[in-house]
Amino acid sequence: MRILGIDPGTGICGFGVIELKGSDTLRGAAKMIDNGVISTPPNTPLAERLEDIYNSMHEIINLNKPDVVSIEKLFFTKNITTGISVAEARGVVILVCKQHNLPIFEYTPNEIKKTMTGYGSADKKQMQEMVRLHLNLKEIPKPDDAADALAAAITHSLMNRF
Amino acid sequence: MRILGIDPGTGICGFGVIELKGSDTLRGAAKMIDNGVISTPPNTPLAERLEDIYNSMHEIINLNKPDVVSIEKLFFTKNITTGISVAEARGVVILVCKQHNLPIFEYTPNEIKKTMTGYGSADKKQMQEMVRLHLNLKEIPKPDDAADALAAAITHSLMNRF
Repeated sequence: MRILGIDPGTGICGFGVIELKGSDTLRGAAKMIDNGVISTPPNTPLAERLEDIYNSMHEIINLNKPDVVSIEKLFFTKNITTGISVAEARGVVILVCKQHNLPIFEYTPNEIKKTMTGYGSADKKQMQEMVRLHLNLKEIPKPDDAADALAAAITHSLMNRF
Repeated sequence: MRILGIDPGTGICGFGVIELKGSDTLRGAAKMIDNGVISTPPNTPLAERLEDIYNSMHEIINLNKPDVVSIEKLFFTKNITTGISVAEARGVVILVCKQHNLPIFEYTPNEIKKTMTGYGSADKKQMQEMVRLHLNLKEIPKPDDAADALAAAITHSLMNRF
């Protein structure tokens, strides 16, 4: 079972692929397959960014062949402008997953934090350390968006106890 | 010069195509070519809606061969949840336009109202009546989302004085 986690954004969109062996969901049972970001230089027109996300997402899925997708759900109270641009990227990401007939699961940032660390107000550093432990990695994956995407993928594995 | 106007939304997405002859932008000089909506039943999963918008947008562009696209810009202060879903649809619409190498122009609802009627707080009825007059139509195009999309297309023609 391969899970593709996504941390959506128009300027920088994180992705992370993990693999679960059998039904073992103990820490360290998941293996990191791939992670990274789809990013475009500052001031790149929105249309170009969305096209880049579309093409890159197809490549990532063709390369890693995930079985399901876990994506951060939009849940915001503060920065509406950022929220709009994240939603535009999310629309394209969800489209590509549908074109590959991949089931899509959505988790709010709080659900991800709570599932990963045990409480909903964990900070970025604690989250990243849990990603490292879960996947038995020597170092925390960089940049943050790639680690966040892996956290989304791990959350799906823990929430569903494969 | 053909302009495709879009009123984005995930549940219902309006479109309208107008044609301008020469450089004449007097009222009635623009001709209505096509209009309608891309709509899905209530409770259709978001991924299906976005895929439907993607496929339908390609069909609409292939059929009508517009030269430019005019799309309503997101500008909201009240309903954030609606705003997110509109942005997800916008992401897919802008992607498809980019795949056809169409220039994309964005106008806020206020810019559209002001350009169409002369003031930014015009109501829906006044706007629709102006769409009807501009395009020399006997009746106001239905549903509202199709009329709104035509208003976006007309706004681009008036703002740019082709």
